[in-house]
Amino acid sequence: MSEQTKYLLDESRIPKHWYNIQADLPKALPPVLHPGTMQPVGPDDLAPLFPMALIMQEVSTEREIEIPEPVREVFRLWRPSPLFRAHRLEKALGTPAKIFYKYEGVSPAGSHKPNTAIPQAFYNKEAGVKRLSTETGAGQWGSSLAFAGTLFGLDVTVFQVRVSYDQKPYRRALMETYGARCLPSPSTETAFGRSVLAKDPKHPGSLGIAISEAVEIAAQREDTKYALGSVLNHVLLHQTIVGQEAMEQMAMADAYPDVIVGCTGGGSNFAGIAFPFIGAGLRGGAKPRIVAVEPAACPSLTRGRYAYDFGDTGHMTPLAKMHTLGSVFTPPGFHAGGLRYHGMAPLVSHLKELGLIEATAYHQTECFAAGVTFARAEGIVPAPEANHAVKGAIEEALRCKREGKAETILFNLCGHGHFDMQAYMDYSAGKLTDQKYDESELAMALAGLPSVPEPA
Amino acid sequence: MSEQTKYLLDESRIPKHWYNIQADLPKALPPVLHPGTMQPVGPDDLAPLFPMALIMQEVSTEREIEIPEPVREVFRLWRPSPLFRAHRLEKALGTPAKIFYKYEGVSPAGSHKPNTAIPQAFYNKEAGVKRLSTETGAGQWGSSLAFAGTLFGLDVTVFQVRVSYDQKPYRRALMETYGARCLPSPSTETAFGRSVLAKDPKHPGSLGIAISEAVEIAAQREDTKYALGSVLNHVLLHQTIVGQEAMEQMAMADAYPDVIVGCTGGGSNFAGIAFPFIGAGLRGGAKPRIVAVEPAACPSLTRGRYAYDFGDTGHMTPLAKMHTLGSVFTPPGFHAGGLRYHGMAPLVSHLKELGLIEATAYHQTECFAAGVTFARAEGIVPAPEANHAVKGAIEEALRCKREGKAETILFNLCGHGHFDMQAYMDYSAGKLTDQKYDESELAMALAGLPSVPEPA
Repeated sequence: MSEQTKYLLDESRIPKHWYNIQADLPKALPPVLHPGTMQPVGPDDLAPLFPMALIMQEVSTEREIEIPEPVREVFRLWRPSPLFRAHRLEKALGTPAKIFYKYEGVSPAGSHKPNTAIPQAFYNKEAGVKRLSTETGAGQWGSSLAFAGTLFGLDVTVFQVRVSYDQKPYRRALMETYGARCLPSPSTETAFGRSVLAKDPKHPGSLGIAISEAVEIAAQREDTKYALGSVLNHVLLHQTIVGQEAMEQMAMADAYPDVIVGCTGGGSNFAGIAFPFIGAGLRGGAKPRIVAVEPAACPSLTRGRYAYDFGDTGHMTPLAKMHTLGSVFTPPGFHAGGLRYHGMAPLVSHLKELGLIEATAYHQTECFAAGVTFARAEGIVPAPEANHAVKGAIEEALRCKREGKAETILFNLCGHGHFDMQAYMDYSAGKLTDQKYDESELAMALAGLPSVPEPA
Repeated sequence: MSEQTKYLLDESRIPKHWYNIQADLPKALPPVLHPGTMQPVGPDDLAPLFPMALIMQEVSTEREIEIPEPVREVFRLWRPSPLFRAHRLEKALGTPAKIFYKYEGVSPAGSHKPNTAIPQAFYNKEAGVKRLSTETGAGQWGSSLAFAGTLFGLDVTVFQVRVSYDQKPYRRALMETYGARCLPSPSTETAFGRSVLAKDPKHPGSLGIAISEAVEIAAQREDTKYALGSVLNHVLLHQTIVGQEAMEQMAMADAYPDVIVGCTGGGSNFAGIAFPFIGAGLRGGAKPRIVAVEPAACPSLTRGRYAYDFGDTGHMTPLAKMHTLGSVFTPPGFHAGGLRYHGMAPLVSHLKELGLIEATAYHQTECFAAGVTFARAEGIVPAPEANHAVKGAIEEALRCKREGKAETILFNLCGHGHFDMQAYMDYSAGKLTDQKYDESELAMALAGLPSVPEPA
């Protein structure tokens, strides 16, 4: 009898609470500031954008926040997601390490994003909201919110970065199949979009611009709220279901990670797999090494400044203290669109400052090479974003091989690459390059960071 | 507490045997004939194309055939697949029926095809084969065999119908990511391909032509065998794991189907979900209605003739008695490429003749409409092939509504549509039409069926 490959939990064991790391932080998170007054925002300041239930989660310091039963009911469509032991990858690498991966590609949208799209749609529906507006890059988040919208009967409007809208029509088709409306951003629907188009009618768009457009629409209409797919505390909170399940599944495998690896764009996927384990360590349990992997072409954690900055290009959002490349920084157009954001989640940034996590950056061709190695060994073709975690995990496994250590490595495979085969075609044709950002542009973007009074 | 959504089996409960319906048939299957002598073929006649273990499965009448442990070991990557209760679809339809679906889209290739690709690769590897050749249309089968090839260390060459090769590059990219070689068919690699190109250098190809090319390559080389993704008895045998698991999962749900629906192209997906239930009925158990759903543009079961015919256009394969539209019939280019084959599996055809199954045909636009209804209710976007089963199941559920009957409906959702979003885009843009085949072409193809002596 061979060793087990896959660790499954019954749907009755979908967690009943999200884990809120704010309860266990040795030092509280710096407050978020109002873009007009530069003073800490209160719940009412955020009310035009979010329903109060989500605002309360944003600022909560309760350790456990209950997952509503209608949300768990939808999660049953794909949760609990499987945890795999990567026997074949271990063999291919010749490593003494044990590699485990949690797989979030089993969701209907193919990524971890529905974990927060579903509760966000639920709380908005409960609050009487009729329509959600949001932004998306490659479309993982937009398609997940479209999926959530159809299940809860909400209209969803998605501003998709124009270059992705034009070049990657398949996730847009997924959004439209779920009944959402998808617009290329910058668009003529918003004042901010029109102002960008006035300067450059062929502007390719960016996540920062699309966020400004989605926020503008939500702020103007009583029946419309805004939904964000990463960065914010409540979004990271919703993803902790991933790490909580993984903890139970690792126990089934009679194992505990020595190292946890996650890819980081805005930070929600990384938080999902890592926070429950970090929290257990903060409460006196084992302390695995926690490794955040980001793209070298958009390296907020490894090259950004820890400072107050806007979440969007139009400077409509509150300011948060985070690792940032500057809200006007435009990352090169690499394939992992989900990691292409100037800032890092305040909670992830805070943990980095506290020395509780490590960060490293890789270029996209080495990440695709890792993804192909993984696909040929384990069968699953990872999304370009997930390839960064695969690369990080393989590097740890090869270190274990060099050092002769049988460590246990856990990573989150946050989505499948079935919508991203053009990127694999470009990779195998040798057409992918390792874009570098412009150092002088980064310096300028950092020099332009807003100056805010340091709160007492 | 709400009703259960998902029925999961532990990986220890992956079936240990395939179910062979030939053991329970009230009348034996007509023999397969040699294309030269028109006499029944023996195992040795097939030895150039297949390893002996598969040939023995092809002709076996044992009820249970053991699944080798290394095959079950690979199956653990995604099997047992989930069975879902479609609560939301039932509600959307307002039907008293209970709808269950088995979901095969969780495999790494996104469809049911790896269920036979894995054992075929295993038996070939065991027999010392180095290379497999095969054909593929849209690419479900080719990508599944490529996946199996990388796991067992076999080189895989795939002849892909040229029109799909050119228009649908993403499954090709998947094959290449798994390390397979993919050629557009007709190709210049084979004598038959060259003969087709000599007549028409821009020939769009067909599955019948691609089969001829793959068979030619395999017949010529000692180290190379041929692999087929449907139609043959051993392929249908391998898919019965789907129905066996579904039977266990229905028992967990304390239910048994009154109606089973499957889409049919070559017949393997349909056989997989239906044969174990048909067999139970033949052995004295309950007899659910069994409904095969095929595309109206390629209606072998509902409009074809039950006669001996070749499996390929080049007439290199043996002749089998089956429902056929004629081996020179070219179906219109609709989107469900996996259902675009002139013949039907001999076993499925035989069951139709014995009155053990029903058959119906639908046009593609009504199938896509059903797929969008399903996606908006259940979250999963089905492959175009699977939409035929969805349409069939919805029609049964609506009949139950009209008749006020709370019947239990089971169907197999054989794959996800993430590689097929162009088809959904065309559908939502109103660009999909219901192609009709040419009646006079069908009449000519049927008139050209080979005349063979009826075996005693």
